[in-house]
Amino acid sequence: MPRMKFDLLHNDPNSQARAGVVHTDHGAIETPIFMPVGTLATVKGLHQNELKDVVNPDIILANTYHLYLRPGTEILEKAGGVHKFMNWDRPVLTDSGGYQVYSLSANRKIKEAGVKFKSHIDGSYHFFTPESAMDIQRTIGADIIMAFDECTPYPCDYNYARRSMHMTHRWLKRCIDHFHNTPSKYGYNQTLFPIVQGSTYKDLRAQSAEFIANADQPGNAIGGLSVGEPAEEMYAMTEVVTAILPKDKPRYLMGVGTPINLLENVALGVDMFDCVMPTRNARNGMIFTVNGTMNVKNKKWADDFSPLDEHGTAWVDQYYSKAYVRHLFTVNEMLGKQICTLHNLTFYLWLMREARKHILAGDFRTWKDKMVKQMDNRL
Amino acid sequence: MPRMKFDLLHNDPNSQARAGVVHTDHGAIETPIFMPVGTLATVKGLHQNELKDVVNPDIILANTYHLYLRPGTEILEKAGGVHKFMNWDRPVLTDSGGYQVYSLSANRKIKEAGVKFKSHIDGSYHFFTPESAMDIQRTIGADIIMAFDECTPYPCDYNYARRSMHMTHRWLKRCIDHFHNTPSKYGYNQTLFPIVQGSTYKDLRAQSAEFIANADQPGNAIGGLSVGEPAEEMYAMTEVVTAILPKDKPRYLMGVGTPINLLENVALGVDMFDCVMPTRNARNGMIFTVNGTMNVKNKKWADDFSPLDEHGTAWVDQYYSKAYVRHLFTVNEMLGKQICTLHNLTFYLWLMREARKHILAGDFRTWKDKMVKQMDNRL
Repeated sequence: MPRMKFDLLHNDPNSQARAGVVHTDHGAIETPIFMPVGTLATVKGLHQNELKDVVNPDIILANTYHLYLRPGTEILEKAGGVHKFMNWDRPVLTDSGGYQVYSLSANRKIKEAGVKFKSHIDGSYHFFTPESAMDIQRTIGADIIMAFDECTPYPCDYNYARRSMHMTHRWLKRCIDHFHNTPSKYGYNQTLFPIVQGSTYKDLRAQSAEFIANADQPGNAIGGLSVGEPAEEMYAMTEVVTAILPKDKPRYLMGVGTPINLLENVALGVDMFDCVMPTRNARNGMIFTVNGTMNVKNKKWADDFSPLDEHGTAWVDQYYSKAYVRHLFTVNEMLGKQICTLHNLTFYLWLMREARKHILAGDFRTWKDKMVKQMDNRL
Repeated sequence: MPRMKFDLLHNDPNSQARAGVVHTDHGAIETPIFMPVGTLATVKGLHQNELKDVVNPDIILANTYHLYLRPGTEILEKAGGVHKFMNWDRPVLTDSGGYQVYSLSANRKIKEAGVKFKSHIDGSYHFFTPESAMDIQRTIGADIIMAFDECTPYPCDYNYARRSMHMTHRWLKRCIDHFHNTPSKYGYNQTLFPIVQGSTYKDLRAQSAEFIANADQPGNAIGGLSVGEPAEEMYAMTEVVTAILPKDKPRYLMGVGTPINLLENVALGVDMFDCVMPTRNARNGMIFTVNGTMNVKNKKWADDFSPLDEHGTAWVDQYYSKAYVRHLFTVNEMLGKQICTLHNLTFYLWLMREARKHILAGDFRTWKDKMVKQMDNRL
């Protein structure tokens, strides 16, 4: 099958921002893009058609570690892959489980061969290798498959970061070998993205970016950021890496971030993002708006009957009042989480589409600087 | 303002079933009807427009006790009533708090003057009287307001049931006096429904039905059932009561029940129902279908990729598979609850609309007997 194709449409003259299109067998992905997180083959609180019709993302994420444990690859294989299983016909990207393995900390052992870990569900032991991570993701049926890596914590000792990066590179070779020796499943093309590591060390990041660029896969990712480091360090690392990664392939910054983080990283040449923040914060009553963030649980909204977000583009923004949504959170009703999830994801996707428009129009930098200032605010 | 009007359209020749229309200032209610329960001004897990467009009930319920505690009458008054607060433009019926007071058992004291109770939220003390229950429901903005009654438990000592019934009757006089001495709020008509009590004693039920009929309000309710008594006892009580209550006014059986309970009570002349069962059971993975009930959590559905309910009329029934919905419950994802809630309520409302069609067509009895047999089944 042909390799995934990326059309780079426009470079912003005043930043590294780019507008492009990634072509997959499940449709085109217009970049820059934010990918909603559907860990367990569901974006929490949203029906698939709501996600499609209201939020309208070109691609979503699912999680290898979680889907491997439940429902398991046997069910996903019988279903004909995750798209059929959840009834979603656009592209799906799966992270490899590297991040979840990192999060398990006490419950995993990392060795050259792979990672032994204890299930957070039933305590059973499992072993992931670069090879098995490829097999599992092929069986899940992801359009974009992530390399199996080690995500280092922050802060991270230089020597540990260096050794870990080299192991991630060796693992990548095994991923690529195994990936290219196995066929795509379910009749559509599957693509592998390698991951740059190197913690917060510029020299390691540069070294890793060179290595990943040389692996010559159809797209590349930046991992190991958004793990607690200051935003300035994240931007510094992104800048080093995007200067090295090939321009003609999409760049995916994993696990990032706030709306401001997104715009700053778009300015540094990133094309794809994912993060649990818009969905997780929504479930805690925190929404992002064009004028800043808002804690809908605050007492000050108790008798504010104005729309949830006057400037919002999701139907919920005008349909429900601040007072009503605040009430739903006060009494712990699920509808509150549903409303804020729909709001936040719609806002994130709107923001990426606006960014794209401004890149294509050539005024991204001015718009970005204004937006970053405007959104850095508590309502 | 004019009294609420009820048009009795048709009587089934082979049962006591009736088809009618209740006219309110928020629109017509075609009976028989099932009223989804929106305790805290939200039907758990559904957006208001989803409820309207998919489930399509002519009326929903809200709860006096719960809304009084949160958000409180001050907020509801400022909002201009519950319809505006939650953005719902069809009729709303509020139960009076009698049932919740009964449920608090250890945390309330019932006296002739009224009921002192302890909030389940913060332990604060409150006092409900027949008069305050009217005021609170007027302020909530219900179209149909329920009399303040005592709901007796099952089983209930005869003497207690008799004394309690007489107190409920004395409370009804106070409700009626106060209700008719206070104006409707927010510019639309509000209507009071008295409640028949008398536990499972036929003589008390008959006596109470006479009393309630004589109160001559635009509609009447039957309370104190569905509190643990066998279905046959429930039906026996309904039969006694509907034989006495006026034919030209709607009859509301409170807190009932399973789909089979609904059909049997429709056959006994009941027009209106409410129950948490379709919504609560949905959140526990239990769905009702035309061929019986189904526990979607069962292992047997793990690899059954057929539609959730082949015969279902809700879009979710064909959109999601049994295996997928089972997975959502296994991993405790909110979407599972959302799907099953939408399914169950759509099924309940479909069942009531079918019942109405068959009453109007004259073959309700045969259809009902067939359906009761068919639905008494575990899938």
